[in-house]
Amino acid sequence: MAKYIGILTSGGDSPGLNAAIRGVGKAALNQYGMQIVGFRDGFRGLMENRTMRLDAGELSGILTRGGTILGTSRDKPHRMPVGGKLLDMTDVIAENYHDNHLDALVCLGGGGTQKNALRLKEKGLNVITLPKTIDNDVALTDITFGFDTALAIATDAIDRLHSTAHSHHRIIVVEIMGHRAGWLALGAGIAGGADVILIPEIPYAVESVAAAIRERSRRGKPFSIVAVAEGAVSVQEHAEQQATRKAKPKEGKKVEAEDTPETQYAERTVRLAKQLEQLTGLEARITILGHLQRGGTPSAADRLLATRLGTACTELIDRGRYGVMVAARGDGAKAVKLEDVAGKVKTVPPDHSWILSARHVGTNMGD
Amino acid sequence: MAKYIGILTSGGDSPGLNAAIRGVGKAALNQYGMQIVGFRDGFRGLMENRTMRLDAGELSGILTRGGTILGTSRDKPHRMPVGGKLLDMTDVIAENYHDNHLDALVCLGGGGTQKNALRLKEKGLNVITLPKTIDNDVALTDITFGFDTALAIATDAIDRLHSTAHSHHRIIVVEIMGHRAGWLALGAGIAGGADVILIPEIPYAVESVAAAIRERSRRGKPFSIVAVAEGAVSVQEHAEQQATRKAKPKEGKKVEAEDTPETQYAERTVRLAKQLEQLTGLEARITILGHLQRGGTPSAADRLLATRLGTACTELIDRGRYGVMVAARGDGAKAVKLEDVAGKVKTVPPDHSWILSARHVGTNMGD
Amino acid sequence: MAKYIGILTSGGDSPGLNAAIRGVGKAALNQYGMQIVGFRDGFRGLMENRTMRLDAGELSGILTRGGTILGTSRDKPHRMPVGGKLLDMTDVIAENYHDNHLDALVCLGGGGTQKNALRLKEKGLNVITLPKTIDNDVALTDITFGFDTALAIATDAIDRLHSTAHSHHRIIVVEIMGHRAGWLALGAGIAGGADVILIPEIPYAVESVAAAIRERSRRGKPFSIVAVAEGAVSVQEHAEQQATRKAKPKEGKKVEAEDTPETQYAERTVRLAKQLEQLTGLEARITILGHLQRGGTPSAADRLLATRLGTACTELIDRGRYGVMVAARGDGAKAVKLEDVAGKVKTVPPDHSWILSARHVGTNMGD
Amino acid sequence: MAKYIGILTSGGDSPGLNAAIRGVGKAALNQYGMQIVGFRDGFRGLMENRTMRLDAGELSGILTRGGTILGTSRDKPHRMPVGGKLLDMTDVIAENYHDNHLDALVCLGGGGTQKNALRLKEKGLNVITLPKTIDNDVALTDITFGFDTALAIATDAIDRLHSTAHSHHRIIVVEIMGHRAGWLALGAGIAGGADVILIPEIPYAVESVAAAIRERSRRGKPFSIVAVAEGAVSVQEHAEQQATRKAKPKEGKKVEAEDTPETQYAERTVRLAKQLEQLTGLEARITILGHLQRGGTPSAADRLLATRLGTACTELIDRGRYGVMVAARGDGAKAVKLEDVAGKVKTVPPDHSWILSARHVGTNMGD
Repeated sequence: MAKYIGILTSGGDSPGLNAAIRGVGKAALNQYGMQIVGFRDGFRGLMENRTMRLDAGELSGILTRGGTILGTSRDKPHRMPVGGKLLDMTDVIAENYHDNHLDALVCLGGGGTQKNALRLKEKGLNVITLPKTIDNDVALTDITFGFDTALAIATDAIDRLHSTAHSHHRIIVVEIMGHRAGWLALGAGIAGGADVILIPEIPYAVESVAAAIRERSRRGKPFSIVAVAEGAVSVQEHAEQQATRKAKPKEGKKVEAEDTPETQYAERTVRLAKQLEQLTGLEARITILGHLQRGGTPSAADRLLATRLGTACTELIDRGRYGVMVAARGDGAKAVKLEDVAGKVKTVPPDHSWILSARHVGTNMGD
Repeated sequence: MAKYIGILTSGGDSPGLNAAIRGVGKAALNQYGMQIVGFRDGFRGLMENRTMRLDAGELSGILTRGGTILGTSRDKPHRMPVGGKLLDMTDVIAENYHDNHLDALVCLGGGGTQKNALRLKEKGLNVITLPKTIDNDVALTDITFGFDTALAIATDAIDRLHSTAHSHHRIIVVEIMGHRAGWLALGAGIAGGADVILIPEIPYAVESVAAAIRERSRRGKPFSIVAVAEGAVSVQEHAEQQATRKAKPKEGKKVEAEDTPETQYAERTVRLAKQLEQLTGLEARITILGHLQRGGTPSAADRLLATRLGTACTELIDRGRYGVMVAARGDGAKAVKLEDVAGKVKTVPPDHSWILSARHVGTNMGD
Repeated sequence: MAKYIGILTSGGDSPGLNAAIRGVGKAALNQYGMQIVGFRDGFRGLMENRTMRLDAGELSGILTRGGTILGTSRDKPHRMPVGGKLLDMTDVIAENYHDNHLDALVCLGGGGTQKNALRLKEKGLNVITLPKTIDNDVALTDITFGFDTALAIATDAIDRLHSTAHSHHRIIVVEIMGHRAGWLALGAGIAGGADVILIPEIPYAVESVAAAIRERSRRGKPFSIVAVAEGAVSVQEHAEQQATRKAKPKEGKKVEAEDTPETQYAERTVRLAKQLEQLTGLEARITILGHLQRGGTPSAADRLLATRLGTACTELIDRGRYGVMVAARGDGAKAVKLEDVAGKVKTVPPDHSWILSARHVGTNMGD
Repeated sequence: MAKYIGILTSGGDSPGLNAAIRGVGKAALNQYGMQIVGFRDGFRGLMENRTMRLDAGELSGILTRGGTILGTSRDKPHRMPVGGKLLDMTDVIAENYHDNHLDALVCLGGGGTQKNALRLKEKGLNVITLPKTIDNDVALTDITFGFDTALAIATDAIDRLHSTAHSHHRIIVVEIMGHRAGWLALGAGIAGGADVILIPEIPYAVESVAAAIRERSRRGKPFSIVAVAEGAVSVQEHAEQQATRKAKPKEGKKVEAEDTPETQYAERTVRLAKQLEQLTGLEARITILGHLQRGGTPSAADRLLATRLGTACTELIDRGRYGVMVAARGDGAKAVKLEDVAGKVKTVPPDHSWILSARHVGTNMGD
């Protein structure tokens, strides 16, 4: 009998979500004669059983669209806000899964989604996930869709800032997304030729950054572009963070990057800019890209990636291969167990080829 | 004898400056057999006699480049920072003008530059100006170059934010340049379909804005894009500003928009976002475009405009027509006296066709 | 009683059509309490009474979309292909207009549409038109929507070709739309810095073009970009065309530009490229942009223009002002009589400021 | 003693060449204290000893530029046009290499360049190559730089054509580069959602294509986008090509794809469009992207790739690792022997994941 699959998108926006939904859905309808239903607003919609029909008409024309036609939310199955409280709704979700007679549930999301999907797998659901996030920090996949588009947007921003920096003899600090991993700031920094790149993986010494900027000034280049990831911290801040983590190991709640309100990143960026002004005597300007990096038409590469991971996903469902994430490996796709992915963050290794490359072209990495 | 002309760019960056320099210079060299010399970093370079040769080679390949090959500064002839003091260097500038045997001086700039050029005209120099600014707030010209490019960038930003707002049920507040005039926020807001547009010319009531957002929510649209110009203020803030201006009329120093540090605009934007969160119960996110709006390749329309104003400028110099700004009028150019332009800011009239148009498509203007 | 208005799009595609439909429709619904209905595929849909509901939902999210949600066709009311014959269906159209109890009919189109609308006006219908075409050749309006987007696309193409021309020492001939008027090729040629610009209004001498290219080569620039409008012809071809027109004045059928099949333009472009190869000894390459110039998201300026002409159109309907085209004039809109527009083509005057500007920066115009 | 390295770019243009030159050069100067000299116009410049100084100044600001600052040519060392004849200039090249006291020669190019570099290696030169081509058809590397940019351009073209196809009920045939390999047409076709994709690796039956288009029409989609690679042939043409190759095995000169003049591809595309018109009764339109696909600012991904391959190249030179191509492998780089690369074309395998993916979403592949 033809399989019946559900699909949802969870976590932050990422360009390519619609391309992936279309890939899963078109392969299901055209190739395998499966039926497919969407759940709205992530795990919340699955919990509330709010569905969206996904036939050929609904899947048409969405390839180039940003966002997700299904809507998304950051709600987690086991800590869902219901009536003012955070409740474990995993059983309700499992019930809806069965009431809908689903054979499989496709979850499109980032690191958090892998964890949530694993919880549903442990409840006996046939889950299968696709790795999306502009941060590129999901483990065991070469790349996540959304990253290439965000890379293009952030690089284009650095390109624009370059020309205005040139004219005005100043420092421009541009804050780029990335709480825990510096892939986006590092990639865009290299591609855009930033003079300084600061990422969470390498705590920075502001004096070293200022010295690099002054040295450029001395060589007749009185402007500098500083690309800083949201999660980049100074050596001092890093030490404090470590101390806090050690000091309060048993207070129940982990210090999570997600708990930092977004405004704190902005404040940190402003502080950095002011420090650099004082240490260099140059004027500084700030740009905060924010959600620009999540929006708009996905890049060609992201659409291609999302389409082929989406169709590979349906292929795996057809073969009854569940409990896995469909990872990108070279030109192909590989099923990796959710247990091996969940809870892991892929950060930039200190000796990664991108970091070496950045150093080789003369970029200051803050250390 | 062939004329010898100097050229400089002053004030903030604006896409199209190089296209205009090329237009002036190529017409001078190719068409009229004039010579041309650039002064670096605006009026400062003229004061310090720092020049840049502008031959066919230097003018080649710059049409598409952002920024200005001459560099720019905000220094004013009559209040120039020299040795830690603000000195009147107008006479030094006039001396350099004569020592260089210039027949004319072309100044590319915005509102401030018109005032500075007028001062030099009053010293007897043959000045002629071109209106550039992304703010479009120069008087007596249909449009300024730089505006179309900035409009495209800000509109593209709103487009991107739309998709992510859709997915997430939230308010996104996007701050757009414009201290005194709302052209850019208004134009981009209409072109991008912003739900709310706040401009300096129309003080806003935050409750009215929140009511419009709630009303959208009621109609099933739980996301809203708020385009806010840097200089937009609430009715209360506006009243305070007016009171301050009346209270201190003789304390010598005018309360100028330029005196507001850029960070204050950001803080105002953050405050607005927080107020809207409280009044609507929706999550808000902030994007601050900043200098992105000044950088990068000029749009085709801006290059066309800058080229034809530039060549028209050289034509006017050939005819000995000085002391004027080369204004855009329809497809052509018109010389308007510096006296008629200087000190005037072109703000958006309350009954302007763009405002009517915005209201007609259902946009909340904050009032 | 609330008015009921019909709307259709006719002729070739043009970016901004959906923005204009939205402008007309949102103003009608939000501001004036009118109802609005769309007719599909231009005058054909009106003849066949194929309608499309246009409520707030349908008008939402179309601002950024290329094409037209209504569909379009080149069918003319008085010569419509029906059952293999060209029949005059004007009366049928008038009947449908009345059967639908329309108070007004909005026709979005180019030059041909103005003529067709005039015919319907003469039948007593309350028609009102908006000027759209990427060619910018509609009379009595400053500009048509679609032009700015096409200008951006064609200019971007020239930008891309520039870099590859540089590397390879060659001539690149790029064919740009424009059968009868050279606005697009001229504007993009100036904005993109083409070395040669050939437009229908100025018959060219291929030897003069080749000489200009050789002269560039002599000055160390062994590459040249030639921007050629579809309708550009050599002096010889022009003379032949004129002779043909004079010789056959009474054969009933005018020699119309529209009758030239598109492939003939391509063949002419290929021939030009080969002639230039022979005359210069340089390799030539050809790019034919074709319908690329009609597609995709409209530029910010086009969306702004289409929105304000659309809302102005509804304003005029509210005031009962019919039989006019809503022309762009400066920042505003102006109603011009259809009789004054129909049948007129706005070509580039030989002493137009753009042509002077192109010559001033050293562009070869083929003469 | 510090090494002295030469660098040249050979073959067709490809976005990212300057980024790669910068990567090699900056790493050489900053990291390893090497000196570097450029040779102009590919192997021709090396033969004629025309050099270009490459210091920090020359390498600055080129990251975002299309084309190559060194110029390029298609001249081969062993068959170079000199005085009207094709001569073997390999020894002259080797002599210049030694006269310049080079320690290594970096050659940036595609498939042909790998062969030419191997010839120089066999003459004892320390050559090392980087794989660039928009066609992505170089063996043993995951990807070549230039491909991602061309993919973005071709996909953007399909996006634009989609909207105009929608409005007008027609077939649009878009010719995409790729003589021997279909990577670009396939990738852009998937990313742009083309309805039909024709590549050299899969000879097509025009009747099957027409049937697919008619079937779409029957399902209410009266428009279709056909993405066709330059080298795509029908089953009949393929059979003829095979017969020709078998018939003339010993006539000395191989039938090479490069020998097909570019106009022949265009003629083939026109013929296909006409056939589809006849078989479907729908109007067809043609766009030929041509050299657009080679030009302009490289994409962020291409700049990142070119930079890291460039810096990896210098690292290999430092370690004395010659006679290899620096291939992309995952995030890193791998040295592969020139002998293993030269003369091999990486075509799309018939069961490649991209082809499966295209079929799964319902794309007609012409078979």
